[in-house]
Amino acid sequence: MSRLVLKFGGTSVADIDRILSVAHKVKAVAAAGNEVAVVVSAMAGTTDQLVGYTQQINPDCDEGEYDVVVSAGEQITVGLLAAVLRSIGCRSRSWLGWQIPIRTDSAHSKARITEINTEKLSDSMASGEIAVVPGFQGISSDGRITTLGRGGSDTSAVALAAALSAERCDIYTDVEGVFTCDPRIVPRAKKLDRITYEEMLEMASLGAKVLQTRSVALAMKHRIVVHVRSSFNDTFGTMVVDEEDIVEDEMVSGIAYSPGEAKVTLVRVADRPGVAACIFGPLAESGVNVDMIVQNVSEDGKSTDVTFTVDRDDLDKAINVIEKARGEFECERVETDSSVVKISVIGVGMRSHAGIAHTMFKALADKGINIQTITTSEIKISVLISEEYTELAIRTLHTAYGLDET
Amino acid sequence: MSRLVLKFGGTSVADIDRILSVAHKVKAVAAAGNEVAVVVSAMAGTTDQLVGYTQQINPDCDEGEYDVVVSAGEQITVGLLAAVLRSIGCRSRSWLGWQIPIRTDSAHSKARITEINTEKLSDSMASGEIAVVPGFQGISSDGRITTLGRGGSDTSAVALAAALSAERCDIYTDVEGVFTCDPRIVPRAKKLDRITYEEMLEMASLGAKVLQTRSVALAMKHRIVVHVRSSFNDTFGTMVVDEEDIVEDEMVSGIAYSPGEAKVTLVRVADRPGVAACIFGPLAESGVNVDMIVQNVSEDGKSTDVTFTVDRDDLDKAINVIEKARGEFECERVETDSSVVKISVIGVGMRSHAGIAHTMFKALADKGINIQTITTSEIKISVLISEEYTELAIRTLHTAYGLDET
Repeated sequence: MSRLVLKFGGTSVADIDRILSVAHKVKAVAAAGNEVAVVVSAMAGTTDQLVGYTQQINPDCDEGEYDVVVSAGEQITVGLLAAVLRSIGCRSRSWLGWQIPIRTDSAHSKARITEINTEKLSDSMASGEIAVVPGFQGISSDGRITTLGRGGSDTSAVALAAALSAERCDIYTDVEGVFTCDPRIVPRAKKLDRITYEEMLEMASLGAKVLQTRSVALAMKHRIVVHVRSSFNDTFGTMVVDEEDIVEDEMVSGIAYSPGEAKVTLVRVADRPGVAACIFGPLAESGVNVDMIVQNVSEDGKSTDVTFTVDRDDLDKAINVIEKARGEFECERVETDSSVVKISVIGVGMRSHAGIAHTMFKALADKGINIQTITTSEIKISVLISEEYTELAIRTLHTAYGLDET
Repeated sequence: MSRLVLKFGGTSVADIDRILSVAHKVKAVAAAGNEVAVVVSAMAGTTDQLVGYTQQINPDCDEGEYDVVVSAGEQITVGLLAAVLRSIGCRSRSWLGWQIPIRTDSAHSKARITEINTEKLSDSMASGEIAVVPGFQGISSDGRITTLGRGGSDTSAVALAAALSAERCDIYTDVEGVFTCDPRIVPRAKKLDRITYEEMLEMASLGAKVLQTRSVALAMKHRIVVHVRSSFNDTFGTMVVDEEDIVEDEMVSGIAYSPGEAKVTLVRVADRPGVAACIFGPLAESGVNVDMIVQNVSEDGKSTDVTFTVDRDDLDKAINVIEKARGEFECERVETDSSVVKISVIGVGMRSHAGIAHTMFKALADKGINIQTITTSEIKISVLISEEYTELAIRTLHTAYGLDET
């Protein structure tokens, strides 16, 4: 007998018919002799509606009350799913965040789970009862409802799997798994059978929004095997696993891209210790999320160029922050470009294989695509290019690394 | 400084604009130096939507999960109202049923409040914080969410007022108070400034649905002064009070009517001890709500006619139950009439005044209206008449008792 956590997103529970279909899947998993906990999101559209109410009040709506309002969405779904499970002959009950309890810190609207007490839940599951648990919500130490931030249900599911020492966490979603690339751009993209946590983290943070980044980091920390699969069929999806569980020797797992970025270059910044802190400290304080940062050695020993990227929506804010901070550092001028895209090649295999970078640069050069900026990590090479080349660059790289479905 | 409980129904909190208007009313009451708790219903339409989901699953949806689903409606409203209050500069927070806690029995979907622990709530209110509390919901002894049944928010408000030893419970609704009669039938109906609990109970149970019957009974038990008033203006409404607080010597407070009833007469029932139990026991067991019951002495010492009324929707069910039970008692035949209306004259003053009944019967006779059945209590006289005379009978009686607005 295994203990499993199954998670269903908003589109999988969008109406009563879909909830019924989820219930039959859950019933089958339980009937196969597993102890089952199910984590569900709010019905598609509900969270948007509730967030809309709070926005109507005040874009700076009190966050404690925001959490009271929006957490109602998941409360509705758990009650409905538990009721449907009972109506098809399963023993089941819903558990709200405060009933378990799922303890979090007090950072309303973006809380972090600190502890899940699984005593009552385990007893219930061991007795054969299917536990239905709301994603996204918890309870703070002073007994108030908290939420984990948008997409937090994946994190809830993985955290619950860790607390329950579950064998696996199955994330049912509206895609069939993790692909080598976005199938809308590369029709011959292949579904990956396995991917490492590290690769998945890079994929997630680069816009392949199959799993929320935090949930992948949590799965990696607790070594929880995550199975990403479709809620609309029974096809095997993608297993997110430890690197040592990857037997294949693929060098590159996928090509990711991150549209909607803008590039800022500070030209000829006086190069002295602490200058980076003067630039990025104020940006962080003002809530601007900085993605890529590139700084090369200074040509003349006195000045250097610093380039970074931000969300295109944050560009004006970033420029304002930089202009205000210019008293703290010297730079000749600030250049911006809001028509760039970041393309990344990801794979744990590249650690031990030379030539991955060369393949990338040559393939892009052969198509006449100019690389503006390069950064690398152990398992990723990212370049900034002009966004008009997005599809061409992605398809070219997908083919160059032999990822096309044959 | 007074302690007040204010209650706002679903139409009063139907959208963010109305919630803002409620917040300003609450702010004004608090600013006048009162400690304030606000009880709110779900936004108009929300409860129907949530109940609809559960009905789609199964008309016999599990009641524990039903409560989890439908209680989400009030959760949304308390969060929104507390957030709006904060946005207009009030100190405020929401309290969910389980946070206070509002303890109930475990009769899911129709629970009764057993205890409200007001310790934390009182401290918060004494510190100047406006408490926003969901109506309709509580928590059972095993820690699960319960609901009080439709219209339960009035009961929540009165129970909270009792637990907090509040000076008054103000029920804000979509009418201006309690009227001598339904203004849609009698345009000259007068708003009553005061009415006794007993009269209000009769009014409520007779279709004047300004307050839920249970809430009136609870207010009477705890002697909570209830002020029924409009949420759309600042007009004084109707105070529901103890009889001794009524200074006026009105004999009749109002005319109520109960449409949608059906009359069943068992003709020539063999008159022996226990026969009533044989008839009404099975009806109660099958969930048929019997309203009026009339049995006169038997003419011949052997048999009598028994007449009772039921909801018109329950008539077929009632007839089936009676037919099955006819082995247990003898009766010649069963007659039914589903075109009757019950008209009642209500007033504590009639206890000490002869002639109230005579006025009623004469006024109806003068208009040629035949009285089919009569029942009386200390503060009420009810008659069944053919429903085609509904408006004529009501207007005639309203005038006969001098209730018309001058």
